[in-house]
Formats: sequence, C-alpha cells, structure tokens
Amino acid sequence: MAAPAPLSPLAPKKYPDLRPIPGVRFATIAAGVRYAGRTDVMLALFDAPAAAAGVFTRSKCPSAPVDWCRQNLAQGHARALVVNSGNANAFTGGIGASAVAHVAEAAAKATGAEPAEIFMASTGVIGEPLDGGKIAKVLGELAANARPDRLMDAARAIMTTDTFPKVATAQVKIGDTEVVISGIAKGAGMIAPDMATMLAFVFTDAAIAAPALQAVLAKSVDRSFNCITVDSDTSTSDTLMAFATGAAAQRGAPVISDAADPRLAAFRNAFDKLLLELAHQVVCDGEGARKFIAIKVEGAKSRKAAKRIALSIANSPLVKTAAAGEDANWGRIVMAVGKAGEKAERDKLDIHFGKIRVAHNGLRDPDYSEAEASAYMKRAKIDIKVNVGVGSATAKVWTCDLTKDYVAINGDYRS
Amino acid sequence: MAAPAPLSPLAPKKYPDLRPIPGVRFATIAAGVRYAGRTDVMLALFDAPAAAAGVFTRSKCPSAPVDWCRQNLAQGHARALVVNSGNANAFTGGIGASAVAHVAEAAAKATGAEPAEIFMASTGVIGEPLDGGKIAKVLGELAANARPDRLMDAARAIMTTDTFPKVATAQVKIGDTEVVISGIAKGAGMIAPDMATMLAFVFTDAAIAAPALQAVLAKSVDRSFNCITVDSDTSTSDTLMAFATGAAAQRGAPVISDAADPRLAAFRNAFDKLLLELAHQVVCDGEGARKFIAIKVEGAKSRKAAKRIALSIANSPLVKTAAAGEDANWGRIVMAVGKAGEKAERDKLDIHFGKIRVAHNGLRDPDYSEAEASAYMKRAKIDIKVNVGVGSATAKVWTCDLTKDYVAINGDYRS
Repeated sequence: MAAPAPLSPLAPKKYPDLRPIPGVRFATIAAGVRYAGRTDVMLALFDAPAAAAGVFTRSKCPSAPVDWCRQNLAQGHARALVVNSGNANAFTGGIGASAVAHVAEAAAKATGAEPAEIFMASTGVIGEPLDGGKIAKVLGELAANARPDRLMDAARAIMTTDTFPKVATAQVKIGDTEVVISGIAKGAGMIAPDMATMLAFVFTDAAIAAPALQAVLAKSVDRSFNCITVDSDTSTSDTLMAFATGAAAQRGAPVISDAADPRLAAFRNAFDKLLLELAHQVVCDGEGARKFIAIKVEGAKSRKAAKRIALSIANSPLVKTAAAGEDANWGRIVMAVGKAGEKAERDKLDIHFGKIRVAHNGLRDPDYSEAEASAYMKRAKIDIKVNVGVGSATAKVWTCDLTKDYVAINGDYRS
Repeated sequence: MAAPAPLSPLAPKKYPDLRPIPGVRFATIAAGVRYAGRTDVMLALFDAPAAAAGVFTRSKCPSAPVDWCRQNLAQGHARALVVNSGNANAFTGGIGASAVAHVAEAAAKATGAEPAEIFMASTGVIGEPLDGGKIAKVLGELAANARPDRLMDAARAIMTTDTFPKVATAQVKIGDTEVVISGIAKGAGMIAPDMATMLAFVFTDAAIAAPALQAVLAKSVDRSFNCITVDSDTSTSDTLMAFATGAAAQRGAPVISDAADPRLAAFRNAFDKLLLELAHQVVCDGEGARKFIAIKVEGAKSRKAAKRIALSIANSPLVKTAAAGEDANWGRIVMAVGKAGEKAERDKLDIHFGKIRVAHNGLRDPDYSEAEASAYMKRAKIDIKVNVGVGSATAKVWTCDLTKDYVAINGDYRS
C-alpha cells in the first residue's frame, strides 16, 4: 500500500453529534483482512428484524456480497450487516461465494439469526480471494460488544482510500414522534453512476415496511448518489442499503406501509438531504480532489438529456484538469456539451462560472473578465451552469477536479 | 502557453521519405495566429480539382470550419486545403463563420478557384474569435511558394500540443501503375471516438471518384481513428479528409469510380494501414503518454459489444493510471468490463497482459506470477487481451496511459 493520502482539503470542518438510533448497535474490530493497525470489519446488529432496502451496482461483474445481498433482499428484513474493508471479494468466483456463505453462517450463529437475514458488503482490492475465516472468527466478539453509540467507529472501519469518515444525521417527525436517521458512507475512487463506487448504509428507528423503504431509497438515490462522479469508473461492489428498525413505534410513531403516505413527507425530505450530504462527502473525498464542482444544466429537452450533458461535463478529463489548474476554460465545457450526443443549440449556449457569465448566445460574453473568472476558479467550491437552449429541463450533478494526486494515488494503489 | 512538453518517449525513431505526390503542392508560414516563432498555417494546393472525401466530428457543437467543409463536400472536389493551428474557430458563432468565409475567399482568389472548392480546418483554443485576416493575407505568398516536397513541413504547421509531427506514406499499384498515398495528422489531447480530436489529411495521386473515395475513407476510419482514445474527450473540430489528385491517370492508372472495384483492393489495404499508422502515432503522442496500450476484446456477442467493452477499458482512468504506475492491476480491467454495460460472463473472463494469463475462468490464474506481470508492465508497448466468454466477436482499440504530465499539460493550457 502507498502511504495514506493527506486529509482532503474539502473534508468537513466538524462532525455532527450522532444520536443513538433505537434498535441498532454497532461494533468494529481490527481483523487484519488486509490493513494493519486499523479497524476493518464492522457489524451492525439489529435488536429485532429491521426492514431492509437496497440498491446495488449495475456492473455486469458484481462482487460476491452484492450477489448475496440481492438474493436475500426479497425477504425484506435484516438481523445484521457485516462490512469489511481491504478486500472487495469481487472476481473471486466460487471461492468468493463460499467466503460470503461462511461469514453469513458465522454472523447468523453469533446473532441468533438465519444466514439469509445477514447482509454483507466488502470494499477494497478486487480479484484477491477473501479469507472469510478472518471475519467469521471475530463476529462473536463484535456481537458481544455492539453498542448504540459506535456509528462513527463504523464509518471509520469501512474506509479504504478515504481520507475522512463520512456521516450524516437528521431528526424528523413522523406523525408526532421524532425519529432519527443516520448514515455512513465510504468511497473515494471508482466513483461513477450508476452508482458511485461506494458503500453507504442508512439506519433509522422509523417504522417503515420494506417495500415502502425500498421506494423511498430508489427515488432518493436518483438525485444523490446517481448524480455524482469522481472518475467515471463504476465499481463491482456499489452498495447502498437502508434499514428501518421500527423501534420508534414503541414511542408512538405510526407504521408506514406506503411510500406515498403523506405522514412520510418530512421523513422523505430529510432522507433525500441526508443521502445528498453523504454523496457530496464522497465527492469531497474524491482521490486527489482539491475542488468540489457542482454542474447544473438548464434548457435541455428532458431531464435525462440534461443529466447526460451534465455528466459529460463532469466526466471530462479536460474539464476536470482545467478546474485543477484553476483555469476558467469554458471552451472545454462546450466540447463536453458537444460530445454528450444530446440536442444543444450551439449558438444559444450560455455558460456561467458562479455568477460570472463567460459565454452568451454561443459566444464569449463581451463583458466577461478573465481576471474575475480566474479569481473565481481559485475557490474550493465551483458552480458551473450551462444553458443549452433547446428546452426547459434541468439536472444537477457533482464532481471534483482531476489532479496529479489522483494519478499518484492510483498509479501505485497495489504496490 | 505552458512550456512545450518534451518529446514523447513513444515518438517514432525515424521518419519515412515522403515522395512527392503528383498533383499537389504544399506551403507553410508563420502567420502569428497564436504561436510565436513557428509555422501555423499550411496550404495544400491542387494543380487540378482533386476528388475530396471527409469524415468529421460527431460533436453537436462543431467548429465553423467543420460546418464549412460538410457543406462543400457534396460537390466532391477540392482546389485547396487551408489549415491553421493555434485557434480552433469553434464556439465563435457568426464571427467564426465570417472568418471562414473570409479565408475561403482569399484562398479562392490566390488559387483561381471558387470559395466552395476550398476546404479548411482549424485546431487550437476554443471560443476565441479567429482573426481570419491574418490567414487571408498570407495565402497569396503560400500559393506562390507551394512545392511538392513540403509535406513534412505541413505536418509540423498543424501541430498544437503535439510533440512530434505525424506522417505516414505508402506506394501501391492500381492496375499496373504505382501510386503514392501520404498522410499527415495532429492530435494529442481531446482524443476520443467518434472521432479522435484530431486533424488528418491524406493525399494520393490515384484517380478515384469522390463517392468511391468517401466509401474507402468511411470504412477505413472505423478500424483506425474511431478505435483510438486518449482521454475520452471529443473535439469540436475533428476532421479527416482524403484527396485524390488523379494525376496517376496520366501514367496509365485506371480511373476508379466504385469502391468495390477489385483493382482497388491493394490500395484499400495500404490506405487502411496508413490510417492506422497515423492513428497510432496520435496515441503515441497522447498528452503525457509514456505507454502505448493495445486492447483486444474477444468472445463478445458482437463487434459493437466488443468495441464498447474495449473502449470502456481504454477510457477508464483507473486502468490508465495503473498502466502509468506499471501496475498489472487486472482487477480494474474486470471493473471496466463490468461497467461497459455489455454482456460478459464474470466467471469465464480470461485476461492476458502480453502472453501472461493473469486471470482464467473468472479467477486469478493460479500460475500467474506477479513478478513476471510487473516486468511486462515496464514495457513501452503493452497488449491487454480480454475474453468475455459469451460469443466470438472481437475488437481492438488503442490508448495510452494517464500520467501526472497529462494533468500538468491540461491544467495550465491557457495560462
């Protein structure tokens, strides 16, 4: 392994207080999966079966734990979640599937559950056989030590090349009862729709039936994790799961069985914000990232077209290296609009960097000041807005710049 | 402008002798379009109208000269080609179109042609108005000085961030008459299908009617320039044109009016090789490139699927940075296969680096030696072969590695 990268300059300045979430406890341990001197396995243990929902990578070569989770999600509830870092257990064939089964059996035994009630995720190197035994043997200890106040520890245990743990939390009312939603995420490279190369897990004590939770999650991910990209590469292991313990029902929260239930409106809003916050943190920890870039496309024929154009800009190495060089190079934005393959009116294009209009009606804005634009590009957070002049649909995506550090980090990841 | 990048380590060790091509002469000049102290405008002057064929960028925001060439190609012949470097005349709206018309009129006047018989291409910065007057005023001098032996000079005049001029040449018989084919190209960044960000011009004294020449060109480009990528970015200005002067007819060469004419077989073969050679040179001059990477995908459902998977590998920043780091990271190849969205059988995947099989039937090859693979990765030319295990179609594409120098070159291009 290369030396750990220094803390991202885009890391949060402070972390929120993470209130315990009734019905779920966490534990972590240094199991020596790959890393030395740090935790690398985390267990989330549900006191009672929790409603479970998930979305997974669209890779045609998914990891063994992704196969496992997909298969078990149908029954809709979870007793435990086991996540390891250091090894993705991907491209490991029958050995990988055996390792998953081995860990699931051990976790089931340690928690008094069935293997099918255990969910799993792995992140790290691809193609190396995962020694399931290393994880299996620590599960008893993890189950014994699980505590409600260990979510931040869990966020740390799932990190790989991340330079900071990613957490977000909210409190919101369902009916008259306040519930907690908290989430953790990891991911720094191999981040692209759909979905980002990342793991994210959201826990709530709300009482929401699994199909409703799945509907909430699926809708929310489309405007958050599916709108971020670091390097256009899609992992074999992307996993985003949500778990609702239902413990809030004991405090009078209603049991929600339909995602469209109006009592869920505030929760959904908070859930959307929380996912977006986690997704933004993933971008802020993009490998080598120095700039957080929001790209808004307006005036497109459809949201789908707007998003495709926005991602074409966000994934362009030339746009991203220009941002790294603090260069207001809007010509490359035009290039990226042009290559997206969606309808755009070249002679109506408007481009803004922040509030600075650099191009108007397909031409350099006559009032545009290079000095002003260059000063803007020195900021850590950059807004790019493009109107493509053919309709009224919009989309927003987020990315980071492409720096020499990205190349350095990824040029010797295995060495 | 940043200081010029050092010569690519992948540059050709020597250049071929470029025989004059009967019927066409070349001239270059330092017109001060943008660069100081180097030539930046080239004229190719045809003694008689030459059959013309072309393929252009698929960008939805093409440059003004691309619009111009597309419009004039219908009439099928050319009297002159004018190319400038330093300014792409793209995203320049009505001003850009006026500049093109201005240059075309001046070129027509200098060569005794009609403006519609003048073809044009521009490469360089996007979004800056091109001063057509600077080019227009040198055309008389260029026409007066045009000589048959100046093709290498022309290759130099169209360079932007290229570190070496790109030329290729062949002699081949049509019937009993030997004809010459020679081509030049430029392009180093913003290289991606379809097509690469590049300009390429091929000249021959063969007598081939424009529709037949167009058919030859269109077929050939699909296996050459449309199979290379440096950074997945598509230029607004990509232009590949072929011109056949027909002067060989005076030496007895038959006049070919149908691309399927069997007498054209050797010519087509030579033309294919020549385009591929130019395309490979473009990759070898990819910005910051240190490795030339050939990617062959086998066992796919269709050629289209094979090509899409191959390009997914070729465009993956993680694969490209691993190559830069001389890391035989085949896990990232699996990732790139998975994200391509085409059918692949995870548990049948075979991956070779050169002759070293690193993965077999979806698992790390038990006989694979990391030391041997690492030694192979130190080479300047790397072959990656992937069998995706679902069919029999194949495709081959070419790319380069992604280095810190790519980021450096593109981070301060305008500064």
